[in-house]
Amino acid sequence: MSEPIQLSDITWESFNAMDVGAKGRYLARNNREYHVLVAQQFTRNRLEELGALATAIRRISKQEEGMTFLRSLLANHRAMLYFSQPSSRTFLSFCAACEILGLNIGEVRDTSTSSEFKGETQEDSVRTFSSYFDLIIMRSQMGGLAERMAWLLSNTERPVPMINAGSGKDQHPTQALLDVYTLQRSFEKRGSIDGKTIVFVGDLARGRTVRSLAWLLTNYRDVKMIFVAPPELQIGDDILALLKGAGVSFELMSEFDRAIPLADAIYMTRIQDEWDAPGEKRKIDISRFCFTCDKLPMLKSDAVIMHPFPRRQEISVEVDADPRAVYWRQMRNGMWIRTALIAAIFGKEHQINDFFARQGG
Amino acid sequence: MSEPIQLSDITWESFNAMDVGAKGRYLARNNREYHVLVAQQFTRNRLEELGALATAIRRISKQEEGMTFLRSLLANHRAMLYFSQPSSRTFLSFCAACEILGLNIGEVRDTSTSSEFKGETQEDSVRTFSSYFDLIIMRSQMGGLAERMAWLLSNTERPVPMINAGSGKDQHPTQALLDVYTLQRSFEKRGSIDGKTIVFVGDLARGRTVRSLAWLLTNYRDVKMIFVAPPELQIGDDILALLKGAGVSFELMSEFDRAIPLADAIYMTRIQDEWDAPGEKRKIDISRFCFTCDKLPMLKSDAVIMHPFPRRQEISVEVDADPRAVYWRQMRNGMWIRTALIAAIFGKEHQINDFFARQGG
Amino acid sequence: MSEPIQLSDITWESFNAMDVGAKGRYLARNNREYHVLVAQQFTRNRLEELGALATAIRRISKQEEGMTFLRSLLANHRAMLYFSQPSSRTFLSFCAACEILGLNIGEVRDTSTSSEFKGETQEDSVRTFSSYFDLIIMRSQMGGLAERMAWLLSNTERPVPMINAGSGKDQHPTQALLDVYTLQRSFEKRGSIDGKTIVFVGDLARGRTVRSLAWLLTNYRDVKMIFVAPPELQIGDDILALLKGAGVSFELMSEFDRAIPLADAIYMTRIQDEWDAPGEKRKIDISRFCFTCDKLPMLKSDAVIMHPFPRRQEISVEVDADPRAVYWRQMRNGMWIRTALIAAIFGKEHQINDFFARQGG
Repeated sequence: MSEPIQLSDITWESFNAMDVGAKGRYLARNNREYHVLVAQQFTRNRLEELGALATAIRRISKQEEGMTFLRSLLANHRAMLYFSQPSSRTFLSFCAACEILGLNIGEVRDTSTSSEFKGETQEDSVRTFSSYFDLIIMRSQMGGLAERMAWLLSNTERPVPMINAGSGKDQHPTQALLDVYTLQRSFEKRGSIDGKTIVFVGDLARGRTVRSLAWLLTNYRDVKMIFVAPPELQIGDDILALLKGAGVSFELMSEFDRAIPLADAIYMTRIQDEWDAPGEKRKIDISRFCFTCDKLPMLKSDAVIMHPFPRRQEISVEVDADPRAVYWRQMRNGMWIRTALIAAIFGKEHQINDFFARQGG
Repeated sequence: MSEPIQLSDITWESFNAMDVGAKGRYLARNNREYHVLVAQQFTRNRLEELGALATAIRRISKQEEGMTFLRSLLANHRAMLYFSQPSSRTFLSFCAACEILGLNIGEVRDTSTSSEFKGETQEDSVRTFSSYFDLIIMRSQMGGLAERMAWLLSNTERPVPMINAGSGKDQHPTQALLDVYTLQRSFEKRGSIDGKTIVFVGDLARGRTVRSLAWLLTNYRDVKMIFVAPPELQIGDDILALLKGAGVSFELMSEFDRAIPLADAIYMTRIQDEWDAPGEKRKIDISRFCFTCDKLPMLKSDAVIMHPFPRRQEISVEVDADPRAVYWRQMRNGMWIRTALIAAIFGKEHQINDFFARQGG
Repeated sequence: MSEPIQLSDITWESFNAMDVGAKGRYLARNNREYHVLVAQQFTRNRLEELGALATAIRRISKQEEGMTFLRSLLANHRAMLYFSQPSSRTFLSFCAACEILGLNIGEVRDTSTSSEFKGETQEDSVRTFSSYFDLIIMRSQMGGLAERMAWLLSNTERPVPMINAGSGKDQHPTQALLDVYTLQRSFEKRGSIDGKTIVFVGDLARGRTVRSLAWLLTNYRDVKMIFVAPPELQIGDDILALLKGAGVSFELMSEFDRAIPLADAIYMTRIQDEWDAPGEKRKIDISRFCFTCDKLPMLKSDAVIMHPFPRRQEISVEVDADPRAVYWRQMRNGMWIRTALIAAIFGKEHQINDFFARQGG
């Protein structure tokens, strides 16, 4: 069998022009993830495997012996966290994930302290990181930058894997992974994600998390999606076309209360006004798209409420106490699935699963 | 025996309204520190135990084998250092303390790089930290914030301990601990802190360290306190009332030279002008409250000079060479006592003391 | 035999006034580096030893067992990275070097987050670092600051070693070390650096790397240096006087193409406009001093192209693919030689060489 194709086998122009769904097959190496760039690179089967790996890690970590085992796995490696766009949540989640695996960390979080100051290109900066580190985790305000840099890294003498930790408006694949993992865990006792109704609420036009998650859910059978938003912020036609093409059943609504009783999961989002064009000042009444305590009785007893954070007023703090509010657990799931992903990239999946099996997991 | 009361057993309003001296009994768990929020939560007995633990750690660390032992204690844990107010000294001291115990660190030091940027509440930020880390060490410009956040954390599904690393003008409990530890060490060969005369000098009105230390010293017998400051910056009446209530002997002075020969310890402080209201421009001649070399002959041969740092002109650099100037050792004591405190929070006190005893400590 | 002289044996004024070549003998302790302050402190013999140590470390690190060995060497120590001048490259290189040896790290990179904010002197800040850490790695915009601080540290009760990671316009000794190490490696199969022709190009007036490297190369026999620059940016007369004094053969040129075929190594540099006086706006056509692909055929087949980074337009990105372009390897050499240096400071040189020998290195 020949080694599958890699990112070094294609020109940047060809890769860049490719449909997102087709990019995935250039991102693997040795039959596992190498670069993690787009949510669409994960098949259903792989989503299940990574979820199982995250759960194995989570359970192993409950005992000192297990933590010590995990911490030994990548203690001889170094990861670079390059966050030129502010995000303490994603940063800390990756930081904790690296620490669980013993990975040593280097970081650049504030571009004003970096040597880009001296007029260096982004390409040279990223190649610098790859000179000192074995993995680059990158967050940027520029759409497509992580892809470009991953392609570049794959075409050097010292390729290192790249994880996209959020690039502009388009991709944040590990957020999509943690969302799917949260759904997997939430529906564990009710079969699987198949056949469930997911209600997306809020700023669906711009939120990349909703777009990625909707895409990934087309991997599952008989999922129904309901999109609840003011007309100006409804989900894009491109996603709807994709869902149609995949035969997914969906509905658009503007009245939140009508959707709540139908939901197995409600995915709340916030207004993404940091992407507003300068001067653009949206005056949308979003109060009708907030989850307040009075809505709890409308919700099925086994449904869940999710949110990618940060939240503003979309979910009242009082809702946190309801057991169906799983968004804090969802956040912690992010740490576990990122740990799983990094472990997988470095080929530690079998070793972890073996340890878990021996423990009687 | 029933488990003692905890922070989750009381409403925030009740806890917040409580006298500082009464708060301590809500901050323990399993008979040891859980949250560390106020200097007043430490009894004399506990101050002695923590001092002994710090000394054990300090001595153990002198040998490679001891360092390796210490570093193994918390290697499977992670601490979050959240410093929204600048302080490299306290930050680095906690950083070193964590590293001595093998604790992995995550940090947010510059609020401009954080996701609060996106309009998140402080509460949600701190709960985020608690999702990824096992201990939160927090410094903030807002008085009472650490207490509020500790209360919040105690009332979630995943409580984690909180150490207040300085909150506004009111509390900086680990500074008070290091000050007491320095006095303990300084008077080791002269009995104890009992019966000693402590002279506080400088900006006593606003310096939280002096206020906390004076409070803690009421735990000791026959301590005499002398407060030396210009009238505008003298110690507050609330502290004096407290001292009277505790039967502590004290004196106010405005002439430094008269106090020096009486001192067993001189605690110098700086003018806290970062707390000045905007526009407020104090024009106080503080030169009379500085420790210069010409004052050294007035000082008892076994007295000590302390300073919480940073210093400006309050102590001449030339004084550093005098063996009675213990402020650099005091700074290092801060690292040891913080190490002791973190070890105690995680229940490692006995293990360390046992190791020390086996070493013939 | 008496212990050699140390930095504590001399006044600051005498040390500061000393010729740079004479400073080296004050910087050692126990026959190895203690402070690393100036490129000129390294003899040829020591350059060879450190290069060999870097190579041993590099080869040892290729195996998990070797990485684990290296990581154990300084796991009980802590290093402080104090970078008040922005430099992500040097910072990350030292960070990786520390991590390879297991050294725990504390850092202050952004002076606005530091307590200097409260009016503390640099001296007190650095003594603070030395209270918590066992090694200080310092970068500053101020020439001579690292020397001053090293002298200070050597004259305290708790001296710790200092590595100068770049101080103003004058010294960046580990850059010089990595440049020499890169030349050593590049000429490994062609004997040594002896007898080679090194061409320096660009902003030779202000670039400290060229000045330091030229100095160090006087340690080798029959090296010829060619300096190619526009007249305003030619190498300083002080360096030329030094070379004359050392009997080194050199030539000044303004036409790049004439120098290329003569080179065994070409050392490209960028215009250092961050040192420009305010208002000073240089209008020099540097396009004639750039290495573009059309120059590759003029270059000897076994010559190398180096650059200290960051680069702007001095070297076309297309040149990177040529095997003679070693500047990316040069960057990685920086990590290895810094690792070697830190290991040497802490007396781990023999242990590493022994491990390497046992491996059949």
